[in-house]
Amino acid sequence: MFILKVLVVGANGQIGTHLVKLIQESGTLQAKAMVRKAEQQEKFKQLGADTLLVDLEGKIDNIAKAAEDVDAIVFTAGSGPKTGPDKTIAIDLDGAVKTIEAAKKAGVNRFIMISSYDTTREAIQEAAGSSFAPYVIAKHYADIWLRDSKLDYTIIHPGKLTNDAGTGQVEAAPSVARDEVPREDIAEVILESLKDENMIGKEFQVIKGKTSIKEALNRLS
Amino acid sequence: MFILKVLVVGANGQIGTHLVKLIQESGTLQAKAMVRKAEQQEKFKQLGADTLLVDLEGKIDNIAKAAEDVDAIVFTAGSGPKTGPDKTIAIDLDGAVKTIEAAKKAGVNRFIMISSYDTTREAIQEAAGSSFAPYVIAKHYADIWLRDSKLDYTIIHPGKLTNDAGTGQVEAAPSVARDEVPREDIAEVILESLKDENMIGKEFQVIKGKTSIKEALNRLS
Repeated sequence: MFILKVLVVGANGQIGTHLVKLIQESGTLQAKAMVRKAEQQEKFKQLGADTLLVDLEGKIDNIAKAAEDVDAIVFTAGSGPKTGPDKTIAIDLDGAVKTIEAAKKAGVNRFIMISSYDTTREAIQEAAGSSFAPYVIAKHYADIWLRDSKLDYTIIHPGKLTNDAGTGQVEAAPSVARDEVPREDIAEVILESLKDENMIGKEFQVIKGKTSIKEALNRLS
Repeated sequence: MFILKVLVVGANGQIGTHLVKLIQESGTLQAKAMVRKAEQQEKFKQLGADTLLVDLEGKIDNIAKAAEDVDAIVFTAGSGPKTGPDKTIAIDLDGAVKTIEAAKKAGVNRFIMISSYDTTREAIQEAAGSSFAPYVIAKHYADIWLRDSKLDYTIIHPGKLTNDAGTGQVEAAPSVARDEVPREDIAEVILESLKDENMIGKEFQVIKGKTSIKEALNRLS
């Protein structure tokens, strides 16, 4: 199915903001920026994007309503490092699951999840007892829920995110050595994944690299 | 299958301690008390129960090894109100899931989960934003994991737990009005559920009541 309109959940985050901008600049796609606070809407209006207020701690129906007129959903919300693990479980796990269920309710099959670099059982064990553990556990279960959802998913596992300018080049594979990657490049990986039906069912890690994003994704297909 | 030996995960908790005692007094069953700290073992040794040290934040294999010689597993571990939501997600959710996976690995089909009174999506929404929310979310996903596990499960949803002496009488049904229930009576509900194959696949709420525990469970069957 040809993707036209994309609901960006967590649009106010750094990847989300890059993504809305890229979508609006693409000429073919259109973004709907879902944010939590009214003051976060202005920048998206200025980009010409639709924008709406939905709290991820609220009901599935509210998210489903937001998804009614879109062709794809990108989940790039995260409670962030400034909040506690109570928000990690409420947003990174339960918020993600509610968004997946909302996609089903709204009949939106295409779903792209921005996961973290490693959400395997082994990664949970490595993080055990550390402050990072709740986040890994939350993302682990969110990813499982999406894999089991029967949606047309893509799960993106970025390396260590930086605010460096995007290079348009990455390395992407089911497993790559841990390294940095600019958030702006991740946003472009998402955009290209939205455009390419071959990315459905794919799950991969992404770090900075020397291959153009389009080509790097082609090699995954 | 006739249950002889029972692994009690979270034996040092109040329900767990009551349960080990009841199992040892039953004459037919035998308890294996799984605890986290060496100093917690002594009281179980005095009851004549097997006891062993396993950290629920550790590997599935460690739990599976603990389950090798048992016929049933009771999960009554909880991070408790004194720890933060980091432990809630690590123990009440991930510890439960690891125990379920360990049961599969060890070939132990019978599994009894001590859940909380209400772990539905609606209960999560009611708790949203409160300090109780992480616990409800964690138990919600642990219960789902067990329902989907293909194990011979029973999921028990107790009302507000008290330290009152057990009365041997409860009210049990898929849905009952929220009320108190003594921990000692919950331990007896678990014991009777272990003895009764008809309790496989059952999920119910339990509060204090006027029906003998055996009869209350019979009515569920």
